[in-house]
Amino acid sequence: MNASPVTFGDRIRAAFDTRGRLCVGIDPHDALLDQWGLDVTAGGVRTFGLRVVEAAAGHCAIVKAQVSFFERFGSAGFGALEEILAAARAAGIIVIADAKRGDIGSTMDAYAQAWLAPGSPLEADAVTLSPYLGVGALQDTLRYAVSQGKGAFVLAATSNPEASGLQKARVSGGSTVAGSVAAAVTAFNAETTPAGSWGSIGLVIGATVDPTDRGLPGFLDPIAPILAPGFGHQGARSEDRETIFGRLAAAVIVAESRSILAAGPHRTALARAMDDRQSTEGMIGD
Amino acid sequence: MNASPVTFGDRIRAAFDTRGRLCVGIDPHDALLDQWGLDVTAGGVRTFGLRVVEAAAGHCAIVKAQVSFFERFGSAGFGALEEILAAARAAGIIVIADAKRGDIGSTMDAYAQAWLAPGSPLEADAVTLSPYLGVGALQDTLRYAVSQGKGAFVLAATSNPEASGLQKARVSGGSTVAGSVAAAVTAFNAETTPAGSWGSIGLVIGATVDPTDRGLPGFLDPIAPILAPGFGHQGARSEDRETIFGRLAAAVIVAESRSILAAGPHRTALARAMDDRQSTEGMIGD
Repeated sequence: MNASPVTFGDRIRAAFDTRGRLCVGIDPHDALLDQWGLDVTAGGVRTFGLRVVEAAAGHCAIVKAQVSFFERFGSAGFGALEEILAAARAAGIIVIADAKRGDIGSTMDAYAQAWLAPGSPLEADAVTLSPYLGVGALQDTLRYAVSQGKGAFVLAATSNPEASGLQKARVSGGSTVAGSVAAAVTAFNAETTPAGSWGSIGLVIGATVDPTDRGLPGFLDPIAPILAPGFGHQGARSEDRETIFGRLAAAVIVAESRSILAAGPHRTALARAMDDRQSTEGMIGD
Repeated sequence: MNASPVTFGDRIRAAFDTRGRLCVGIDPHDALLDQWGLDVTAGGVRTFGLRVVEAAAGHCAIVKAQVSFFERFGSAGFGALEEILAAARAAGIIVIADAKRGDIGSTMDAYAQAWLAPGSPLEADAVTLSPYLGVGALQDTLRYAVSQGKGAFVLAATSNPEASGLQKARVSGGSTVAGSVAAAVTAFNAETTPAGSWGSIGLVIGATVDPTDRGLPGFLDPIAPILAPGFGHQGARSEDRETIFGRLAAAVIVAESRSILAAGPHRTALARAMDDRQSTEGMIGD
């Protein structure tokens, strides 16, 4: 039986088949704002984000908004982010809020409300989460996401060199921290996902990470999406997807930001950069 | 030579001597909003926060705003938070934004701008940070905080049971993750703090944590503040401050939320609850 595309994981899988696995970052760095002729203000990041969404419509299935670049302008920045998230969702684009939130109890519940509750001003399709307080502390949020047809991506192994000490630390039983995060998320998906569907709780694994070095478990089959930053500007290439992720490469969302955004500010040039990237790297229906 | 109270750490130390070590949480849970007769809206959390600030003025040196309870209302919630942070700082109260942010590079810089830049709409005196990507990934933010006379608190050991696996994992060299975070922050303070001053980068250590079990290093003298949630409603008592933190007890900010806030909504009752707590627990000038 083929499950209908109802879980967030299934929506991602369906998007891969028809519209490709490219995820464009909405990352309004100062340098990019300047290049696009925009001010470093809430108004500037608003125009920037809306233009990326306009270009992505029909050319890219997934966008990822980097929350910090909006948060720096306080409520005005969040107002801009609300408009951008809503415009993307209205255009049928899957929206990931890259917020890396992580806390406990009712505090964590409030973050889930912020990013995943239907009708919330900041409603996205998925949010990134940070597990320093334990994946267990995120369980209620993960369950809430599944119950709402939403998703989440839990940080597992990141590419920055400063991360290696903590993420390679050994938990009781011998696996690495990164490996234990991956195992906990995999177990959660196994428990909560209907047969034939993809799970809705993904992992963040940098595209330039050595998975063996980080102690990531030998995965067999893709059962949930993997959000992989590090392609494009940061140096990872399409080949790396196969090398790093093996059979799991089929589950990888290719997150790129500067390599696409540098083609702006014009909508058609941005859209062409997205198309080129997806076709030359064989990202659609592979 | 006695350094003048210029570092954030020195401001905390001076506040302990004259106004006590109590830090009241601005945590507008739904249940508290209901008890106070306020709506679960941006307007409700705004009134809640402003009332806590009004009660704290002259009765409590430090407040800690739990960002998630505002973020759930999007830009309107952040607008309320801006007003509350500004009112607290105008009243001479030291404001900690409990945001638990953590990322890398320019993304992390943007979070530093959001919470620590003078003149930012969300300007606080200090922000809490999460080190899953490594304390090294936070270094630029820590340096920025010091350069602006601001502070930060890095999550080290939290009280929730789900945290123990990750925080007790062993890094290369044998210390625990929590211990290595504490060591990195201590080294940072040693490097950046003038003689005679307290460092401005604190740790978050739950008041009900067993420090030996978490592998926290044997501290000798307090050199930077410690933010310790878990007092009051969560069960830790003043005696625990000595038992857990030893000589470091002198550096502990006693964070309480529900145990104080339950005395609301009236300003005088809230202020009395703060006074009572500080006097019965000997929190001023000890």
